[in-house]
Amino acid sequence: MSLSTRIIGIDPGLRRCGWGVIESQGSRLTFVGAGTVTPPVDGSLAERLAVLFSGLGAVMDRYVPAEAAVEETFVNAGVRSALILGQARGVALLTPAARGLPVAEYAANLVKKSVVGTGHAAKGQVELMVRTLMPTADFKGPDAADALAIAICHAHHRVANQRLRAMA
Amino acid sequence: MSLSTRIIGIDPGLRRCGWGVIESQGSRLTFVGAGTVTPPVDGSLAERLAVLFSGLGAVMDRYVPAEAAVEETFVNAGVRSALILGQARGVALLTPAARGLPVAEYAANLVKKSVVGTGHAAKGQVELMVRTLMPTADFKGPDAADALAIAICHAHHRVANQRLRAMA
Repeated sequence: MSLSTRIIGIDPGLRRCGWGVIESQGSRLTFVGAGTVTPPVDGSLAERLAVLFSGLGAVMDRYVPAEAAVEETFVNAGVRSALILGQARGVALLTPAARGLPVAEYAANLVKKSVVGTGHAAKGQVELMVRTLMPTADFKGPDAADALAIAICHAHHRVANQRLRAMA
Repeated sequence: MSLSTRIIGIDPGLRRCGWGVIESQGSRLTFVGAGTVTPPVDGSLAERLAVLFSGLGAVMDRYVPAEAAVEETFVNAGVRSALILGQARGVALLTPAARGLPVAEYAANLVKKSVVGTGHAAKGQVELMVRTLMPTADFKGPDAADALAIAICHAHHRVANQRLRAMA
């Protein structure tokens, strides 16, 4: 019987940063918790990043995940948007890494493919599949759903990688 | 006699992040320390950001600045570069903000203008002026020089702002 691993998925963003924690045991997935960190929009950029850091840090203190996965950001809205998203993403990657967790990155279309079966799924489809795969999941909103999808994607890939290593 | 304030300037970057600490008392500036944090290039992005965070954090533990200033990044090298720089910049803004320091941001050409007198100075000119303004400054390299210039820019602006407030 394989050991259970607790995984946090993070969907980075400065206004809304989704997080989702699952337990992965072999091919079995269990919902643990999910939510969204929403730094106040009226603070300075540095203050908002500090709220994001402490908010994600509080989630990690509460749920103590062993591994983290963050969505690789696809930006098609220009250099300015990329810089803003990059700043939030830097904090999303840092928070688990500063606690010594391994952090995996997955492209958005790979996350969708692993959860919905196609890389071009709509946001509503991702949430529907997350609820189908984990019927006990209790969460609100598309950002938490995306974060859970990232955690599920990592759970699938880490099992596949372990099998490949066992065959080598 | 005005109180002395310790300021850290940060020139963000993932390969080389410059930092410079000065003491500002009225119009008098004193060099305290400067250097460069260089996360190893062979780590994962998350690991490199964690090294940047702990490196800048160690500088702050050692020098205990009261205020921070970070250069506003000008990116003209495409969306991908903006995202990478944004990630390092997010950590550079977060590190002082997570310790409760106020963090100011200054555009690169304003930093040059405050130190050299023109917004279009070459990197060598910035370093030369930093050494002229603070003859006891002991540091190496353009990234530390830029970080000291950012701290000097903040020292000038905070004094001007205090005078404006006193006149109001």
